[in-house]
Amino acid sequence: MDKVVDFIHVNRERYVEELKALLAIPSVSALPAHKPDVARCAEWCATEMRRIGLDQVRLVETPGNPVVRGDWLGAPEAPTILFYGHYDVQPVDPLNLWESPPFEATIRDGEIYARGAADDKGQVFMHFKAIEAHLKQHGRLPVNMKIVLEGEEEVGSEHLDDFVRAHKDDLRADVVVISDSAMFARGVPSICYGLRGLVYCQIDLRGSAGDMHSGSFGGAVANPAFVLAQMIAQMKDRGGRIKIPGFYDDVRELQPEERQAWASLPFNERAYKKEFGIPKLFGESDYTTLERTWARPTLEVNGLLSGFTGEGAKTVLPAVAMAKISMRLVPDQDPDKIAALFQAYVEKLAPKTVELTFTRMHGGKPWMTSYDNPFVQAAGRAIEKGFGRAPVFTREGGSIPVVSTFNQELGLPAVLFGVGLPDENAHAPNEKLDLGNFHNGVVASAYLYDEIGRLPRN
Amino acid sequence: MDKVVDFIHVNRERYVEELKALLAIPSVSALPAHKPDVARCAEWCATEMRRIGLDQVRLVETPGNPVVRGDWLGAPEAPTILFYGHYDVQPVDPLNLWESPPFEATIRDGEIYARGAADDKGQVFMHFKAIEAHLKQHGRLPVNMKIVLEGEEEVGSEHLDDFVRAHKDDLRADVVVISDSAMFARGVPSICYGLRGLVYCQIDLRGSAGDMHSGSFGGAVANPAFVLAQMIAQMKDRGGRIKIPGFYDDVRELQPEERQAWASLPFNERAYKKEFGIPKLFGESDYTTLERTWARPTLEVNGLLSGFTGEGAKTVLPAVAMAKISMRLVPDQDPDKIAALFQAYVEKLAPKTVELTFTRMHGGKPWMTSYDNPFVQAAGRAIEKGFGRAPVFTREGGSIPVVSTFNQELGLPAVLFGVGLPDENAHAPNEKLDLGNFHNGVVASAYLYDEIGRLPRN
Repeated sequence: MDKVVDFIHVNRERYVEELKALLAIPSVSALPAHKPDVARCAEWCATEMRRIGLDQVRLVETPGNPVVRGDWLGAPEAPTILFYGHYDVQPVDPLNLWESPPFEATIRDGEIYARGAADDKGQVFMHFKAIEAHLKQHGRLPVNMKIVLEGEEEVGSEHLDDFVRAHKDDLRADVVVISDSAMFARGVPSICYGLRGLVYCQIDLRGSAGDMHSGSFGGAVANPAFVLAQMIAQMKDRGGRIKIPGFYDDVRELQPEERQAWASLPFNERAYKKEFGIPKLFGESDYTTLERTWARPTLEVNGLLSGFTGEGAKTVLPAVAMAKISMRLVPDQDPDKIAALFQAYVEKLAPKTVELTFTRMHGGKPWMTSYDNPFVQAAGRAIEKGFGRAPVFTREGGSIPVVSTFNQELGLPAVLFGVGLPDENAHAPNEKLDLGNFHNGVVASAYLYDEIGRLPRN
Repeated sequence: MDKVVDFIHVNRERYVEELKALLAIPSVSALPAHKPDVARCAEWCATEMRRIGLDQVRLVETPGNPVVRGDWLGAPEAPTILFYGHYDVQPVDPLNLWESPPFEATIRDGEIYARGAADDKGQVFMHFKAIEAHLKQHGRLPVNMKIVLEGEEEVGSEHLDDFVRAHKDDLRADVVVISDSAMFARGVPSICYGLRGLVYCQIDLRGSAGDMHSGSFGGAVANPAFVLAQMIAQMKDRGGRIKIPGFYDDVRELQPEERQAWASLPFNERAYKKEFGIPKLFGESDYTTLERTWARPTLEVNGLLSGFTGEGAKTVLPAVAMAKISMRLVPDQDPDKIAALFQAYVEKLAPKTVELTFTRMHGGKPWMTSYDNPFVQAAGRAIEKGFGRAPVFTREGGSIPVVSTFNQELGLPAVLFGVGLPDENAHAPNEKLDLGNFHNGVVASAYLYDEIGRLPRN
């Protein structure tokens, strides 16, 4: 490994110049005008993968953007890593808030600013450079490697599930490695071992055929916006506990070790409130803020719409009212079961004065691996070698659907090995990646292959 | 009166042709492109008022559209009627739903279809023709008459209050007559003697500086959309009774005679539900539907907005949530007092997890005259002579702000003498006026002047 790490240190500046070329391609998957750029970016990645020594590099067509595939399979006794990343990026609006052009990577104070710097080009490129270092110095990797780069992550990964199902044999591996997330805080490298799942629904109420005049009809009928408010108010109690019968039945309780570990994390509620402009934190009183966001299920109103919402006053008694409501799930809650419990509860809450339409939208299962999973432990050692500090083990409140996809379709454990920072502006203006973390991440990735290479195959 | 009524019968067909000319002017006050048409309509009315024999006909400029004024003051011993109407009309969108062009009046099945047919050109013109009949046959009216035609009623009468205040002496009268409403039902002429008032407010809650990701932050903070739903749900109990402390203190209870009279009105709940597509009527259980809409105060949500409201799913934890909430008031509730009670209650309901902004918007006092007011009784006799049937005495759930204006600024009682029908489509495509009602209305208006002329001056 010394030769590998030396190579990485020596080439540190070249990496940044190469990364700038990748960040210059505006591969915005959400905008049809950028379709040629997305294609060009896939080609760029394929060319780079060939250059660093991967085999069988190819673009696999999908009904959307191509998947870039490449392998190195020269270690038949070692485990196989399936590395997943994505080469598409978010749109850049509002452009006027960028301090430097989003597709001309600019370095300020040791951070590289560009769309895709953290999400996910910079973190994909980190692995390219770790692979390159191994192959250039030793002509081989300590593990087998299968690379899958998606071009539609920022538009919902619509074709990824089908791709994975259609290539199950080709994608057989021992672990999936994803570097598309942030560490807990600057200077606090972390490994994420749990994600929440999601059930997302829409409730539509109709109280009359059309909007009515609130003077002529007010008092005669139920107001669907008021009924909706009454129904929503009955979904949680005043302490924030969800009132859907059976909702908590399958919730896996937090382990004392987890609570203890999280309690020692550098989390400052006062700074958090200030950063996000929150007057007062709120939630189940028996759990800390981190526990509530990482390990407790929630119910949130994501959208409300009824009646007149413009400037001024219109005396309308609305015909319809709509709410988008989602629940974040934790192990071992099942999205199908929770959706059914929620629908039954909503149907019970809805009075006969309104017509209810209940629509279930997308969702995903919660995911969790364990501390002592050997791949997670290997990743922890690699992080420690790359960053000079042992990682903290965290969970995340959000969902990463591909993690569930690889788990469900291929049965793979996942290592979430992210080197971004919480303030990286992944979907906002002035996205950035800390170059020190990038460099340490290349070293840590190189160690990750070494550590996993020492593990027995599954 | 026989000569007057004969004249009206003989000229019945000419009236319709003249009315068509008035309805052909697209005096849409809401659309700047129609500004010249609004001006042309004011001129048309002034010319017609001169033609029928009114004196001192003039346009009075305001910061908006002019007021058309004209008088006949030749009966110094008789009371003075201040007749109020408006010559502007609603926009016509959606144009494709009109069965005949909105500004080419078309007669089908005894009804004249055009924008403004009922609201309010047709009903203004009815009075023009009644005045004309008196003046042509007798050279005089049995009352003094002051006519005020507004050009901004459909855009909130922004300049009317100032106009009335600035011309208090000029507008001195004994009663204001307004024909800008509908009768209770076809074949059931009515006199409206009460209107509800209005307090309209907006509530804005902020839970964070910006929208947040519902995965990363769900569970950490209060969701302002959820808090808003909780607050709204506490504004009324499950029976529909408003929970604002002190809200009902000044509510004048329904009189047994009113309840008895209304109970005999031809009101069919089944047909009402069907007509408006209402699954089930709802409201205070001690009151009938008519009582609830006419004589009981209400609280309605007029608009709700928060978070993501488009197609599909977006996992946003909204930063802000907004509700527009209005209350209809009945005698003797005071809008200022109710607004203060409501604001205090909202401030009490709002938890510390959100920043509350409370905005009071427009409103108006409830209005009511009494059955036995001599002007109302005179109007009842006139209606009976014009329509061959005694009117029913009703109230209305809505507000007519000018009624309060004339009452407050000039101390005038009002006679609401409307000959439209509940299905006249006043603000919708295919607005219409029944020509039989129009004709009977001309006769009734002629009798109204005669009846009021017999009353003592105030």
